Amino acid sequence: MQPLFGVTMGDSSGVGPEILLKAFRDGEIKMPIVAFGDLEALEYYNQRLGYGVSLRKIAKPGEFSAGLLNVVDAGVMTREDMAVGKLSAQSGKAAREYVVAAARAALAGEIAAMITLPMNKQATQMSDPRFTGHTELIGEVCGVDDVTIMLVSDQLVVTHVSTHVSLATAIARAKQARISTIIRLTCEAMLRLKEHPRIAVAGLNPHAGENGLFGDEEVKEISPAVEWAKAQGLPVEGPFPPDTLFC
Amino acid sequence: MQPLFGVTMGDSSGVGPEILLKAFRDGEIKMPIVAFGDLEALEYYNQRLGYGVSLRKIAKPGEFSAGLLNVVDAGVMTREDMAVGKLSAQSGKAAREYVVAAARAALAGEIAAMITLPMNKQATQMSDPRFTGHTELIGEVCGVDDVTIMLVSDQLVVTHVSTHVSLATAIARAKQARISTIIRLTCEAMLRLKEHPRIAVAGLNPHAGENGLFGDEEVKEISPAVEWAKAQGLPVEGPFPPDTLFC
Repeated sequence: MQPLFGVTMGDSSGVGPEILLKAFRDGEIKMPIVAFGDLEALEYYNQRLGYGVSLRKIAKPGEFSAGLLNVVDAGVMTREDMAVGKLSAQSGKAAREYVVAAARAALAGEIAAMITLPMNKQATQMSDPRFTGHTELIGEVCGVDDVTIMLVSDQLVVTHVSTHVSLATAIARAKQARISTIIRLTCEAMLRLKEHPRIAVAGLNPHAGENGLFGDEEVKEISPAVEWAKAQGLPVEGPFPPDTLFC
Repeated sequence: MQPLFGVTMGDSSGVGPEILLKAFRDGEIKMPIVAFGDLEALEYYNQRLGYGVSLRKIAKPGEFSAGLLNVVDAGVMTREDMAVGKLSAQSGKAAREYVVAAARAALAGEIAAMITLPMNKQATQMSDPRFTGHTELIGEVCGVDDVTIMLVSDQLVVTHVSTHVSLATAIARAKQARISTIIRLTCEAMLRLKEHPRIAVAGLNPHAGENGLFGDEEVKEISPAVEWAKAQGLPVEGPFPPDTLFC
């Protein structure tokens, strides 16, 4: 049997439902999927946009059948709740539920992996003030403390010590403990993806600091993390001058 | 008459003389040049490397004659002073003199421009503790306070607010006064190179700070400098997200 993927619909005030329906109608989704979302929200957009996608409500991914868009229905949003393009506490809360449901289905082995459409951070924070993003929410469902996002292409995989902060904050966050955690998570994931991964740690400063001449973060924080990882037997090298790793 | 260029030989303990002689021998230098250096140092390398370049001592660039390597001789280094690959206060001092001589020749209109081969910062600092690099030394000969290096290609010209410092120091140096100076210098130079230059100022933070969400250097330092420059009538825009300017 082909692996089945779960796609979360995202915030129903946003672009998620439209993207999902359009991609499905145009045959751009090449693998079997089930949607995690609200059937009525998808019906609303399907009708309003005139896409003519056949929708089917299912209770769990195992009920998947080919040829139509199977929706694991959260039953939260109704047609009357639709607030297209508007901030909505209800659609923010619903978007969170789709992600939790898909993550649980993945953990239960009912789907092979999950794909997420956009949530609205502000909308979801109206019901869950601790919400910061997909990564942390999925980590919470998985019951793990250390999580990081991983960007994967055929050529290169990238993980980050920090994301979406000022350059000054990014420097402040480049601490040995955090770097060690990211190296460990990256190595664990890469060793499952590839038999002999080559894992390089980027320095922070030009020339990776050139032994402290252009900044001491490599000497004080990054090199100790790399040495710790090597001592654990992890296949990692560095720190290297950051620009050289992306050429 | 074709423009004549001056090439400084660089520190005679280093790679400069060899590069100059080899490029000249191989016909890689496509324009007429005069060398600013020491004739005896060039004779030493020419003989030791078996290059067979014809050298000629001249007193000033105007005595240039084609077909051989004309050397405006500083008369500082003798064969006996050669310390190949070794730190030498004398060769450091001499390298400084070549640059001063070439810069003065350029100011006097005797050469169209100067090209510099490597100095050794440490060697030159043994006689001139204030020496920091070619850029500042040439600025001093020109009698100007505000100088910056400019990287020029057919596609793109780049100037820097700071160079060769740690990332933390680079952030600390991104101050309105310095940025305003660099914008002014860049605009002045570009308006001489091109009729309608497009000059963009890069932000410091991801998304150029997104209105202070990812760092406030754009709001506090960079935007005020750009606005000042615009008020002076300088053709500048920004700040833009830094990565977008180099795509």
